[in-house]
Amino acid sequence: MSTIRKERIQSASQTRRGVGERARKRLSAFAGALLKEWKRLGLPVMDERVVVAVSGGADSVALVLALDELMKDGRLGVEVTVAHLDHGLRGEAGREDARWVEALADSLKFEVAVGHVDVKERAVRMGDNLEQAARRARYEFLAAAAGCGARVVVTGHTMDDQAETVLLRLLRGSGAEGLSGMEAVRVLDATSEILLARPLLGWARRAETEKYCRERDVEFRVDLMNEDESFARVRVRRQLLPLMETFNPRVVESLSRAAELLREDATVLKLAAVELLQRASEEEQAVRTEREASVAGSLSVDVLKGAPVAVRRRALRLWIAEGRGDLRRLELVHLVGVEKLLAGERGGRRAELPGGSFVELRRGRLLFYIK
Amino acid sequence: MSTIRKERIQSASQTRRGVGERARKRLSAFAGALLKEWKRLGLPVMDERVVVAVSGGADSVALVLALDELMKDGRLGVEVTVAHLDHGLRGEAGREDARWVEALADSLKFEVAVGHVDVKERAVRMGDNLEQAARRARYEFLAAAAGCGARVVVTGHTMDDQAETVLLRLLRGSGAEGLSGMEAVRVLDATSEILLARPLLGWARRAETEKYCRERDVEFRVDLMNEDESFARVRVRRQLLPLMETFNPRVVESLSRAAELLREDATVLKLAAVELLQRASEEEQAVRTEREASVAGSLSVDVLKGAPVAVRRRALRLWIAEGRGDLRRLELVHLVGVEKLLAGERGGRRAELPGGSFVELRRGRLLFYIK
Repeated sequence: MSTIRKERIQSASQTRRGVGERARKRLSAFAGALLKEWKRLGLPVMDERVVVAVSGGADSVALVLALDELMKDGRLGVEVTVAHLDHGLRGEAGREDARWVEALADSLKFEVAVGHVDVKERAVRMGDNLEQAARRARYEFLAAAAGCGARVVVTGHTMDDQAETVLLRLLRGSGAEGLSGMEAVRVLDATSEILLARPLLGWARRAETEKYCRERDVEFRVDLMNEDESFARVRVRRQLLPLMETFNPRVVESLSRAAELLREDATVLKLAAVELLQRASEEEQAVRTEREASVAGSLSVDVLKGAPVAVRRRALRLWIAEGRGDLRRLELVHLVGVEKLLAGERGGRRAELPGGSFVELRRGRLLFYIK
Repeated sequence: MSTIRKERIQSASQTRRGVGERARKRLSAFAGALLKEWKRLGLPVMDERVVVAVSGGADSVALVLALDELMKDGRLGVEVTVAHLDHGLRGEAGREDARWVEALADSLKFEVAVGHVDVKERAVRMGDNLEQAARRARYEFLAAAAGCGARVVVTGHTMDDQAETVLLRLLRGSGAEGLSGMEAVRVLDATSEILLARPLLGWARRAETEKYCRERDVEFRVDLMNEDESFARVRVRRQLLPLMETFNPRVVESLSRAAELLREDATVLKLAAVELLQRASEEEQAVRTEREASVAGSLSVDVLKGAPVAVRRRALRLWIAEGRGDLRRLELVHLVGVEKLLAGERGGRRAELPGGSFVELRRGRLLFYIK
């Protein structure tokens, strides 16, 4: 379990001292750009607490320093909690980072929440891989840190992170949803009302965050895991993107732009899928009387057949997610199996899904059997 | 201008001799896969002439050899015209390739059409770049070769070509339409009813076409321009894809799959855009009386505003293409300019388009002024 210590609560209106303190004539370009995006995303500007996830790397440190600049300049009046999770993967180096982030928050007079978890142990216990376990632990920790009344958690993900995400998904063969990359604002998790916002994602390059830290005379931490080329993301950053930049020096911006366009597409197609699902479910009441307890839902084959494949596939995906509770281990091949039922191809009236549930074709409807 | 010589017309039902002649017990894997895709795409199987574009490289040679195998085996009964265009860019090497393709067609008893153009001269004359001029010359030549009654032109583009195309578009920052890559079947050009089909695109790897040529004891030609790394496509093939394969050995298949998914998405979104355009144009009759001759069309701002951005942007793109006759030099920035009119942002009621036409906001409608 993570342990959280809260330290030093101080309202944003109080005077600050410490790192980067000096009277500024005008806003830095970095803080100005952050403020613009902050407002565009509708993030809180007054009298609200905001949790900022800070690893100690240049991106999140630049984010917290720019928030400090904006608050000192009177442009923002929020209350900041700096949240740092030590994943327990790097021993003393991890503990040092935690102490460093605490000292930084201290110098900025921000509240700080530091958590320590053993991600390896959690991975084994939950049957997750290390990356999944780390993500889960992080989200739990951030939700807990926000628990004391914060509506928004912000992270320092940059446009470079976005480009890396898009390429990693492309390497895996994702469709529009995957290639959309990260969203600038979304809910932290399905059960939560806390928003996760990434106000650097749409515009900031990693080099700019480093430059801004230097301007503020803050030496950010360097995570050696960011240099370990056994991680695909690190190789994307250090090998693939540099090669792509020899084709187009602005490829990071291009990838980010492509992700944005595809995200807009995905939004429309998801809406169309939800509508299709409603239409295809309509007669369900009629068949419900005769249906077994193990049938989680049924859809009209005729309605589905009349829809374009891009919408139908998304509708089936949503339907299966609803029926099973999640999309774990659901691959394109399973969806294609269900689509084959619609086509009435030889070789069966049943499509198996991972985990024992299945979809069966009966009297013009697809029936979803849960295990 | 291209010159076309037609040689040797022989119906598909006559006996053949020459390259690859031997009694086959069963269909090769390559020809079998081609036949399956050929039928899936609804390409002609009997008594029709098909033009096959053959450069002399492994891909197009494998295609024509596999068609030969399918015809000898009685699986296809089409009539084949082998079409080869010498672009005039490689001097004697280009003429040698042309002679080689003629000899190949001869040995297979296929009709052959060879064209010679001076692409450089055409590029200068038409104000195109070399790539555009080459593409234009190729399409004209293929249309002419098909002129004698062929409904379909087939090319030897493989899944590797598709992956390269997707990456080149990604490097440029394309949205779904660009990332959809090449279509397996489309019309040859906007004014034509001739279909351009790529029956290797969805499944064949370049290595398979080379292997099949070797199995048939045919030494395909190697175009030295395919090794010239000053071409972005060559560098994608020789540097970028090999690096991506170190992440995922099946990345070519993944890219091809992503392109297919995005193409399905783009189909739905284009349809939605066409519908939106119709709705937004509906009241146009009412305003037509008062409109000037230079107004090519008008759209309701309210209708456009109610649509999601992904659909609206496509609708505006279609609208501008209709008004101007083409999309030349139209960039995303111009569309964004038109969208800003909708948002009613300060700074103008007019969005300029390249070439002197513009869109103006007036009394709740967007008016398209052509130059």
